[in-house]
Amino acid sequence: MKTLQDYIDKLNSLHFKEMYNNDFFLTWEKTDDELEAVWTVADALRFMRENNISTKVFESGLGISLFRDNSTRTRFSFASACNLLGLEVQDLDEGKSQIAHGETVRETANMISFMADVIGIRDDMYIGKGNAYMREVSQAVQDGHRDGVLEQRPTLVNLQCDIDHPTQCMADMLHIIHEFGGVENLKGKKLAMTWAYSPSYGKPLSVPQGVIGLMTRMGMDVVLAHPEGYEVMPEVEEVAKKNAKKSGGSFTKTHSMEEAFKDADIVYPKSWAPFAAMEKRTNLYGEGDFDGIKALEKELLAQNAEHKDWACTEELMKTTKDGNALYLHCLPADITGVSCETGEVDASVFDRYRTPLYKEASYKPYIIAAMILLSKFENPAELLKKLEEKGTPRIFK
Amino acid sequence: MKTLQDYIDKLNSLHFKEMYNNDFFLTWEKTDDELEAVWTVADALRFMRENNISTKVFESGLGISLFRDNSTRTRFSFASACNLLGLEVQDLDEGKSQIAHGETVRETANMISFMADVIGIRDDMYIGKGNAYMREVSQAVQDGHRDGVLEQRPTLVNLQCDIDHPTQCMADMLHIIHEFGGVENLKGKKLAMTWAYSPSYGKPLSVPQGVIGLMTRMGMDVVLAHPEGYEVMPEVEEVAKKNAKKSGGSFTKTHSMEEAFKDADIVYPKSWAPFAAMEKRTNLYGEGDFDGIKALEKELLAQNAEHKDWACTEELMKTTKDGNALYLHCLPADITGVSCETGEVDASVFDRYRTPLYKEASYKPYIIAAMILLSKFENPAELLKKLEEKGTPRIFK
Amino acid sequence: MKTLQDYIDKLNSLHFKEMYNNDFFLTWEKTDDELEAVWTVADALRFMRENNISTKVFESGLGISLFRDNSTRTRFSFASACNLLGLEVQDLDEGKSQIAHGETVRETANMISFMADVIGIRDDMYIGKGNAYMREVSQAVQDGHRDGVLEQRPTLVNLQCDIDHPTQCMADMLHIIHEFGGVENLKGKKLAMTWAYSPSYGKPLSVPQGVIGLMTRMGMDVVLAHPEGYEVMPEVEEVAKKNAKKSGGSFTKTHSMEEAFKDADIVYPKSWAPFAAMEKRTNLYGEGDFDGIKALEKELLAQNAEHKDWACTEELMKTTKDGNALYLHCLPADITGVSCETGEVDASVFDRYRTPLYKEASYKPYIIAAMILLSKFENPAELLKKLEEKGTPRIFK
Repeated sequence: MKTLQDYIDKLNSLHFKEMYNNDFFLTWEKTDDELEAVWTVADALRFMRENNISTKVFESGLGISLFRDNSTRTRFSFASACNLLGLEVQDLDEGKSQIAHGETVRETANMISFMADVIGIRDDMYIGKGNAYMREVSQAVQDGHRDGVLEQRPTLVNLQCDIDHPTQCMADMLHIIHEFGGVENLKGKKLAMTWAYSPSYGKPLSVPQGVIGLMTRMGMDVVLAHPEGYEVMPEVEEVAKKNAKKSGGSFTKTHSMEEAFKDADIVYPKSWAPFAAMEKRTNLYGEGDFDGIKALEKELLAQNAEHKDWACTEELMKTTKDGNALYLHCLPADITGVSCETGEVDASVFDRYRTPLYKEASYKPYIIAAMILLSKFENPAELLKKLEEKGTPRIFK
Repeated sequence: MKTLQDYIDKLNSLHFKEMYNNDFFLTWEKTDDELEAVWTVADALRFMRENNISTKVFESGLGISLFRDNSTRTRFSFASACNLLGLEVQDLDEGKSQIAHGETVRETANMISFMADVIGIRDDMYIGKGNAYMREVSQAVQDGHRDGVLEQRPTLVNLQCDIDHPTQCMADMLHIIHEFGGVENLKGKKLAMTWAYSPSYGKPLSVPQGVIGLMTRMGMDVVLAHPEGYEVMPEVEEVAKKNAKKSGGSFTKTHSMEEAFKDADIVYPKSWAPFAAMEKRTNLYGEGDFDGIKALEKELLAQNAEHKDWACTEELMKTTKDGNALYLHCLPADITGVSCETGEVDASVFDRYRTPLYKEASYKPYIIAAMILLSKFENPAELLKKLEEKGTPRIFK
Repeated sequence: MKTLQDYIDKLNSLHFKEMYNNDFFLTWEKTDDELEAVWTVADALRFMRENNISTKVFESGLGISLFRDNSTRTRFSFASACNLLGLEVQDLDEGKSQIAHGETVRETANMISFMADVIGIRDDMYIGKGNAYMREVSQAVQDGHRDGVLEQRPTLVNLQCDIDHPTQCMADMLHIIHEFGGVENLKGKKLAMTWAYSPSYGKPLSVPQGVIGLMTRMGMDVVLAHPEGYEVMPEVEEVAKKNAKKSGGSFTKTHSMEEAFKDADIVYPKSWAPFAAMEKRTNLYGEGDFDGIKALEKELLAQNAEHKDWACTEELMKTTKDGNALYLHCLPADITGVSCETGEVDASVFDRYRTPLYKEASYKPYIIAAMILLSKFENPAELLKKLEEKGTPRIFK
């Protein structure tokens, strides 16, 4: 696409009315058109920034970031997206307050939202909790708006939960779309979402789950590969199966990394913790059984160590399509010999793909901004047009 | 009021010239007109926000928040107020620096204020210290401005001190005004500011003091009720007495919660620490006597526990005017069976008043913004008019 | 200067094209014209702020602050500068993330810079590390921009490193220029950069080094005085010597504070740690030898204590030019009898110079803003003109 009008025309061909005044929790709750609207707006915002057209649509207003564990990158992505649109970020750290459940969630959610247009939450630690917590916050501020407490309804962006990581996977997908020259070129492509060994423990499942829940919608052949015992949530596998059926692609599982990589067009090797273990950990935390948690950690690290051969090596990369598959990672990766002794990926593989990996990440702030914009504006196509006509430069000249 | 012009007309009928270039420390240092100007501007700002009219009056500039103990809600209220007017908040935490007294206060106050238009301080921990500290900071930056160090004089907003909590009480009052349909309807109404049991210890006295110091100005019958030994600062009681006399209302004290609640139109049951004990604690801190502090804490918790019957129960609420008094709280409340075993208020009472309580809190950012605006602009009525004429939408359209 | 045009004319007479799209690491990497451009733009920005002309040149964009140790003042200076130009500050604390070296620096630098127009770094703790780290970050984001990861190249401002403290020294110099009525009046003036006793340990060398590296360029007679064993980096002394030769001034060293102060026009008495000891400390940290660090600290404090007579006393001040030298300090100072028992300066001396000291500090935000502006705009003279013509008020009226 070459002009802003192209993006606007694209938007005008899509149906996404339901996104207005709505949250973004899980990609599979959104229609294909809605996802395409996100990518289109993300590309349009990037185009405008590159062309020094301001996209500041808020004169004032806050974007609240609620992080239940530390994350520099997500924090900066959310802050960048808010800034791009004119919202000022206010962080609510667990350290600074204590958001619990029930009354406290309801109250705190309202107390911090008097001027909030959007709330971004990351809560990926505990199975069965993160997504539920987000919905609780969303309901609280909807009630607050209905009852005249809040002048506006703050919409919610899921910045990673126990189930999905939509901003990451949507950015991954936009990267794929650009690399392959369009959604229409993805049909029949093979994507391998595979587990990989990492010396650390307890990495969230939201990325593999998000990937199989999203990438199966494009008519691709998505393979999920992991050692026995590293299953992901069965509900999400069901989503993947249905998606594949509908899109004319496929969703298969294997316990062989080699099989997954064979002739793959795209590979996404990444460590994660077994779903069952994470569920157990969540319960142990609930019971305050810290000895149990320690024992579980030890056990899981030992279990991981049995699968050090699950690594994205040069040898394995050679077996992919033309030895040249697109290598994806949500970063940071555990790089063998760099960030750890034995990790997810060979240093030479990572090195070769560094620039594409950084580009993959660079879509995230635009994806988040697009999600915000689509939830706050009823007619984004018209909005973009007016912004172009107004032509305020981002950098004065 | 229905149009912005109504607020502007109201402002034009009030005298508040002294607020320009001035601080907001204690409500009783302000005239009735000045307080009414704050409520009027607060309502006008809310009206404008609801009608998508930007009230961004600063193109750049900082609002400094200085918090001597953690407070998510106050932090967000101040940040919201600043953002509404175009100021960017910079937090100065005790953790990040060490503001002490004398030379250090003078110097730090200036060093952080080169671009500061307003400073918000919360310092409610130690009797005799918080308000004094604020005045020290204010004097330092006034000197800095006079001496050509600072291009502007940063004005100060008291976000809670040892004596008063003006942003809270002014928000409470604005809530009352709206609930009762105007200041003119408050004459003769009975307001009960009562102590209530909480399992925690050392809650500041600024709310009960702020309430009796402010609410006695409206011709209401204000009753302060607490168990023996929970006296508030005598100076503030003197203020309350004088206010009541002048306004044609009354200020009485009782040691019976029942008596206070009887036929009350408004009830504000809330825990606080005894003034004398807080004074003792301040001295113990000064002497670094941590064993003494521990002993005092134990003693105070035991003292509290003798008064578990001081609770806002359904039974007690029934004895209020038509069983239907307006229940106020600065939040968060200790709710019996929800946030603690035995607390300040029955869960069913709290539940019934949740929406009004949230609304009460929702005025705070607007109150703070009004205080800032009145201290920074010589002619706020004209300013609001010009903002309306300019008509920049808060959210682009 | 009286009108903005004067500053613009001045800028038009200077050559500083190389500053565009470039970093600011060390003053001695910049030409005289480039330094003068910084002072001119700083003065112009201050003039505009005083005259309520907005200098908000960015509609959106981030200024990233990367602090490797806590610093309220530098943090606020950087935040103020960014705010003045329209950039929103996002802090990256070591606590919040872990920026290490190599792959991690490269990656994190890019991940936080998607919307970053400028990065400010303070890293003064370890000899041989701070400046090197900054260059590593700069290279990483330059590569990111070249490779299409970043839409813009974030430029870098050194907010203090192991070698230089350019924003401090440039602010010091601008203060001197104003006090002496112009750069042209500095020729032949005597400036004493002297060590002074402090009860604390390990103060960075960047200030004395920055001062001798910058002040020797104005034709002044710069004297560096310190007890034996408190040498600064020899490379910087070489810079000072060359500068002095070129500018027609002089650079001399002495171990006598009295000699340095004698007839001095400007004195800058300030504690610092011995270079060799700091190098040793850096190595001990590298080896994780914490017992060694403790021993070194003890040793250094003892060494300091031998030089308690190195203090800026009233007696010593009397020996300066007309007993009236301009007293400089980067603040906070160790004031005898105020912030410590025995310190760098007599309380009465400090008191007398408080206002000039605060003014000295007040230039820093403008210096930083000028550095940013000169790195981001190709034609700052034209930019200032256009801003004046546009005439957006900083505070609405």
